Amino acid sequence: MNNQITMKLNADHLILQALAEDITSEDITTNAVMRTYCKGEVELICKQDGIIAGMEVFKRVFELLDESTEVEMYCSDGDEVQYGQLLALVRGDIRVLLSGERVALNYLQRMSGIATYTHSVAALLNGTKTKLLDTRKTTPNMRIFEKYAVKVGGGYNHRYNLSDGILLKDNHIGAAGGVKEAVEMAKEYAPFVRKIEVEVETLEMVKEAVEAGADIIMLDNMSPEEMKEAIRIIDGRAQTECSGNVTKENIARLTDIGVDYISSGALTHSAPILDISLKHLHAVDRI
Amino acid sequence: MNNQITMKLNADHLILQALAEDITSEDITTNAVMRTYCKGEVELICKQDGIIAGMEVFKRVFELLDESTEVEMYCSDGDEVQYGQLLALVRGDIRVLLSGERVALNYLQRMSGIATYTHSVAALLNGTKTKLLDTRKTTPNMRIFEKYAVKVGGGYNHRYNLSDGILLKDNHIGAAGGVKEAVEMAKEYAPFVRKIEVEVETLEMVKEAVEAGADIIMLDNMSPEEMKEAIRIIDGRAQTECSGNVTKENIARLTDIGVDYISSGALTHSAPILDISLKHLHAVDRI
Amino acid sequence: MNNQITMKLNADHLILQALAEDITSEDITTNAVMRTYCKGEVELICKQDGIIAGMEVFKRVFELLDESTEVEMYCSDGDEVQYGQLLALVRGDIRVLLSGERVALNYLQRMSGIATYTHSVAALLNGTKTKLLDTRKTTPNMRIFEKYAVKVGGGYNHRYNLSDGILLKDNHIGAAGGVKEAVEMAKEYAPFVRKIEVEVETLEMVKEAVEAGADIIMLDNMSPEEMKEAIRIIDGRAQTECSGNVTKENIARLTDIGVDYISSGALTHSAPILDISLKHLHAVDRI
Amino acid sequence: MNNQITMKLNADHLILQALAEDITSEDITTNAVMRTYCKGEVELICKQDGIIAGMEVFKRVFELLDESTEVEMYCSDGDEVQYGQLLALVRGDIRVLLSGERVALNYLQRMSGIATYTHSVAALLNGTKTKLLDTRKTTPNMRIFEKYAVKVGGGYNHRYNLSDGILLKDNHIGAAGGVKEAVEMAKEYAPFVRKIEVEVETLEMVKEAVEAGADIIMLDNMSPEEMKEAIRIIDGRAQTECSGNVTKENIARLTDIGVDYISSGALTHSAPILDISLKHLHAVDRI
Amino acid sequence: MNNQITMKLNADHLILQALAEDITSEDITTNAVMRTYCKGEVELICKQDGIIAGMEVFKRVFELLDESTEVEMYCSDGDEVQYGQLLALVRGDIRVLLSGERVALNYLQRMSGIATYTHSVAALLNGTKTKLLDTRKTTPNMRIFEKYAVKVGGGYNHRYNLSDGILLKDNHIGAAGGVKEAVEMAKEYAPFVRKIEVEVETLEMVKEAVEAGADIIMLDNMSPEEMKEAIRIIDGRAQTECSGNVTKENIARLTDIGVDYISSGALTHSAPILDISLKHLHAVDRI
Amino acid sequence: MNNQITMKLNADHLILQALAEDITSEDITTNAVMRTYCKGEVELICKQDGIIAGMEVFKRVFELLDESTEVEMYCSDGDEVQYGQLLALVRGDIRVLLSGERVALNYLQRMSGIATYTHSVAALLNGTKTKLLDTRKTTPNMRIFEKYAVKVGGGYNHRYNLSDGILLKDNHIGAAGGVKEAVEMAKEYAPFVRKIEVEVETLEMVKEAVEAGADIIMLDNMSPEEMKEAIRIIDGRAQTECSGNVTKENIARLTDIGVDYISSGALTHSAPILDISLKHLHAVDRI
Repeated sequence: MNNQITMKLNADHLILQALAEDITSEDITTNAVMRTYCKGEVELICKQDGIIAGMEVFKRVFELLDESTEVEMYCSDGDEVQYGQLLALVRGDIRVLLSGERVALNYLQRMSGIATYTHSVAALLNGTKTKLLDTRKTTPNMRIFEKYAVKVGGGYNHRYNLSDGILLKDNHIGAAGGVKEAVEMAKEYAPFVRKIEVEVETLEMVKEAVEAGADIIMLDNMSPEEMKEAIRIIDGRAQTECSGNVTKENIARLTDIGVDYISSGALTHSAPILDISLKHLHAVDRI
Repeated sequence: MNNQITMKLNADHLILQALAEDITSEDITTNAVMRTYCKGEVELICKQDGIIAGMEVFKRVFELLDESTEVEMYCSDGDEVQYGQLLALVRGDIRVLLSGERVALNYLQRMSGIATYTHSVAALLNGTKTKLLDTRKTTPNMRIFEKYAVKVGGGYNHRYNLSDGILLKDNHIGAAGGVKEAVEMAKEYAPFVRKIEVEVETLEMVKEAVEAGADIIMLDNMSPEEMKEAIRIIDGRAQTECSGNVTKENIARLTDIGVDYISSGALTHSAPILDISLKHLHAVDRI
Repeated sequence: MNNQITMKLNADHLILQALAEDITSEDITTNAVMRTYCKGEVELICKQDGIIAGMEVFKRVFELLDESTEVEMYCSDGDEVQYGQLLALVRGDIRVLLSGERVALNYLQRMSGIATYTHSVAALLNGTKTKLLDTRKTTPNMRIFEKYAVKVGGGYNHRYNLSDGILLKDNHIGAAGGVKEAVEMAKEYAPFVRKIEVEVETLEMVKEAVEAGADIIMLDNMSPEEMKEAIRIIDGRAQTECSGNVTKENIARLTDIGVDYISSGALTHSAPILDISLKHLHAVDRI
Repeated sequence: MNNQITMKLNADHLILQALAEDITSEDITTNAVMRTYCKGEVELICKQDGIIAGMEVFKRVFELLDESTEVEMYCSDGDEVQYGQLLALVRGDIRVLLSGERVALNYLQRMSGIATYTHSVAALLNGTKTKLLDTRKTTPNMRIFEKYAVKVGGGYNHRYNLSDGILLKDNHIGAAGGVKEAVEMAKEYAPFVRKIEVEVETLEMVKEAVEAGADIIMLDNMSPEEMKEAIRIIDGRAQTECSGNVTKENIARLTDIGVDYISSGALTHSAPILDISLKHLHAVDRI
Repeated sequence: MNNQITMKLNADHLILQALAEDITSEDITTNAVMRTYCKGEVELICKQDGIIAGMEVFKRVFELLDESTEVEMYCSDGDEVQYGQLLALVRGDIRVLLSGERVALNYLQRMSGIATYTHSVAALLNGTKTKLLDTRKTTPNMRIFEKYAVKVGGGYNHRYNLSDGILLKDNHIGAAGGVKEAVEMAKEYAPFVRKIEVEVETLEMVKEAVEAGADIIMLDNMSPEEMKEAIRIIDGRAQTECSGNVTKENIARLTDIGVDYISSGALTHSAPILDISLKHLHAVDRI
Repeated sequence: MNNQITMKLNADHLILQALAEDITSEDITTNAVMRTYCKGEVELICKQDGIIAGMEVFKRVFELLDESTEVEMYCSDGDEVQYGQLLALVRGDIRVLLSGERVALNYLQRMSGIATYTHSVAALLNGTKTKLLDTRKTTPNMRIFEKYAVKVGGGYNHRYNLSDGILLKDNHIGAAGGVKEAVEMAKEYAPFVRKIEVEVETLEMVKEAVEAGADIIMLDNMSPEEMKEAIRIIDGRAQTECSGNVTKENIARLTDIGVDYISSGALTHSAPILDISLKHLHAVDRI
């Protein structure tokens, strides 16, 4: 994760909650057969090529169960990893290794899945000035992990949530009485450190948005030709973003338009996991 | 969701947490342009064919923001829905509709995606005695929603978590000193209402597990031929499950083996979302 | 407790809550007269013969206040302890010893009271095949501690809660339309790892339950003779349980019936505490 | 409970926690056989003579599950109730009645058990000036309910916790350097609205405590004769309390001593429950 | 507050926590003398001229205790109020009025104090283009209320917290290796909707910041003359802010400099409260 | 703070909440430019003369972010500190120093502001028998810190909250039917360790209160002459308190009346902060 402060303040309580979701009273299987401490070691093995993300979260799951658990890492977030690669060794009380395994992998596999998918989409933008953005289409209570995974995969973050970014859509514009009025109301109301983004659907609205002083203009439901014309109209006076069901399969149509950003909900809502597992658990001599 | 009690005790706090994740101080865009109550209505439209799941959760998101919000439903969980279909109307304070939209859809799209994928995999088992099971490979803090969605899609639930089901794997068996010992220790230790499941990798272990009185035997890493032989050996004395990276693409090899259950982590960890959106928000006369 | 994972995930927050219940702002008496650290030692003394349970919880109370507190234990959960016996020494900041004393003892005394009472009831089943079960009649927010204490005392656990065990009572059977229908609906609905228990009141219902494939049959409100007949009818095809205001005083009537389990709410709802106290607090030289 | 404010601020979260302890995902039995709303009614019947306490808590359990549940009460806290008496009718969704039953009774039985036991002990003090007090020997996370039940039963409350009452014991006195010093330090340190209580073991200490201006003097480990002498020495200059393993069986020796208060931990730590149950659940026509 | 959504998601839990801080078990005074419901009414009276802020929060305190409490308002946030003015009537259970009074006033007085002070400082900027900003120097766990009060008083909000605004100070610039590098790293790292603010102390740094593309430049520790020169250099290419122990007493020196914003920690950390009280509580006939 | 137990049980969760208020996802500025650990040191410098309070809280903020942070203190709570004085050195990960700075100072400045103001008011009572009291007019969710700061500054604490002190006001007296009845009801109802305080407005009520056995009498809305007369009437039979918008500016009129206590809400609701800041952050060699 970003750093240890974020982990403690913004991730730990979610990880503990996920552990409690999986262990409401006790791990009865493990406790039935293992009554006492026994030191063990298990290997974290990659089962599929991809980009790894979430190694610190993986480690934190075990530490939260038992702070003496050691995780020896052989890779870092952002690394390209390959089928069969040893990613880490986890050493500690075998009961901790068994009880924490599933939650640790659930985080690591999802985060790596997102990083891997993001990486593959971002690669299609190589050689252009366009950057790949995520959206707020994240899994509930997973945003801090998923937005981080997008960055690890080479994407960029759009606003974190409704409180830290302004995006004026048609309903907001309608309520305000027009693009100009909406931008003015937003500038008056919101913390002045916010950029103001306006979603537009026609070239007429593009002009209004630029003139109203929008910082970012999101081109919605436009054809590639319209978007190119919009970029010409904007002419660097605002940043530009285009959006709309963008996936690895259909992004090609957008790569030569010249927008600054393309946002894709699929990065977080439809990336399959990266297959990773814990293997070869065995007892080791207690030191 | 299962019913209103589950919603209140086990889902509400997660939904509120997801809302707070998206609104850490306020929805600044909406608040900037809409200072007062304005009643509005918006349509929930399906953008893709599939199985709907999570309608009550969708509704609950808006109710938690404002209990006077009305959701008029035109479908129920489990229904097959189609591109373009009107699923529901949501009526209430436009600010509530705008501020709750993303979280409500994030739940509904994911849950429906899981139900849709599960349905398509379960269809491949039609005509057999074999049932489709989920696993604990769920998204952290989403288990209550995802396990429910599997059932809506026609799958069955394996244990909910580590506390309510026993699954003796090789490491547990090793620690106990053998299959027989492990089953005995589990029977002695665990609440007596638990069935005891043993994971086996060889026909020898199958025999041991049956003789030890295992209630369920999970066949792991076996060829279809070995599995058939295992079923013959077990001969109805235990329920049977097979497992291992099962997806829609590769389940065919397992359908004629005669196991009672096939479990698939992909149901919850890799189902893409079902595309659903809120459209045509407009003001309505206040009653 | 079961182990350190259970303690961290499922007990710590309850213990901290109990401490905060007793210290809403500060221990004003202690803080008034002891402004600085002073190392002390206190003896945990048994004041009554019985079975000890909760030593790890007792220790954890002090550790949660100050992780440097040392508890040197001279007994383990399940030990028979006697009047006057030294159970442990607690060493640390005297303020921690004083402020944590009451909560630590409140847990230890109750848990040991339950273990002691359970032990005495279970002893009456010695020489029979019948095991003693607890119920869900536990003190609110004490279940994790009380169910554990029952096991320490030689009892067995029934289901942990409404989510991890199925028990079809007359109202459930009525709603389903009959025993057979109820068992089928439960098998279809619940995670397949659950055993299905049916509560029956007549021999007719016993037959229906067996034929419907119930895993456990609870004999309710039957005379000893009826119960014996029921056991004959069931003939090993299901596990058997009998229930109903069972106490140490009245269990004798049930011991030769041959049921697999007798459940008793009294184990957790009416066991008196075991008297234990902290004595001879004194300062020790700081190391 | 005391009133609705206490219920909302100080009891609701504990009740919800107890419900979540019993329903970690869902009531699978009930949900398996009852998929839709069905209005029902159930009778709350007393199975044992005693004093009822906790009717509002009993009701609140059902309201927290479903606010439309109606509880028609035929008794109030403090009433003497008898075997077979109808205490209340509960009407609402049968699933709510079934899922909430156990938690509601767990509270009501315990609270009524405490009130009943307290009432019987307090009766032994009739005709004397001595009042019966509780202690901090309450069940963890049950204090708000148990202290209330003591009052319902005719007892009086000692301090609520370590923060709202001062009780200088031998270790505090030792740390301060003497009774006089301890009382002075407490007066200087604590909120001035606190009375100061001193625990004494000798007549010498009684004198010191009175002279130091203690508001309350607790006579500990004294013979009845010593206590009478202590009362003479104190001569109304402080309130008096005696303490020490007081139960219904042994309180007689203390009734003619003339202390203002006798405190008894047994009121909360060893009172057996009062047997109460929900009976005759049946469907009623939906209005 | 901003609106009901913010109240529910971001304020309610703080208000409930404040109520629980004041009522750890019960309002013993009120409960001692008022055992039953009695409807009453009390007047909210202004004791000092000022700007009112927090009326919705004031109301919410009572609603959270008892949703049937009615607050009839005679003023709105932002109104100038005067000594003796009737601001609202509160009607409901007298026990609710008494138990909620202090917390309700603690919020209202503080928020109105901040609005009043902010209004008086902002007035000194009338006729200039300069706007008044708050800072992060808010009371812990009061930010949502205090930042809102600043806006009510006519001020503007700077960033809400460390997560939603970028402010590169000397240490950040040092770590990055220079202004240019720091701005680039921030653009690469942070969500692209963030404006980037740089704190500068010399005219040299002003130039670097402008050239690096900073969106906002904060002039720190500069003389008025230097600031004017800085404004000339920046020449509209970035927004400008000046800062540093600004109070009502010393803001005059900054009003003709021409910066876009002046920020003042004193708005939230040193504004005295506005005196407001509840008076004339009396019973009213129950309807 | 009072001691480490209070810090852990009653302050830590508030401090963590304040940190999370300031860091909802991450400190983006710091994380943008500092990707790895770098050890640094910063000086805590006093910018104004006053009384310091909250050094342990200041330290705890950093420890909660990173337990390895070291705070070397050069002063203790209660010390008179001066402009320019070095109060402490903080050493640790520079990212921790930067991310924790604001919250740590927000606590320290407020607590020291209260201690400083209290000290200056208490000084005006030197040479009299009258002590200075705080009230419940504290900032929501800051009471534990603010009441402590009052003591550090030389003031005394009134009741902590509504649950631990009895104060019968006119409405309570009216509901009870008179002063005598109110005192009796309070004695009967409340824990017997509570002193009973009565607020009176006339000399007649003074007499009634004394005769009813009130422990403390609060003189409200009386002229100095009336108060002197009241003191004569009371004649040591109860403690006395006077109250009413007491500030440093107007306390003189009350100093020779001879009341035991004067309470002042201004101590906590209107004390300006003490200016303190962190300066000279620089990297140090990592050990």
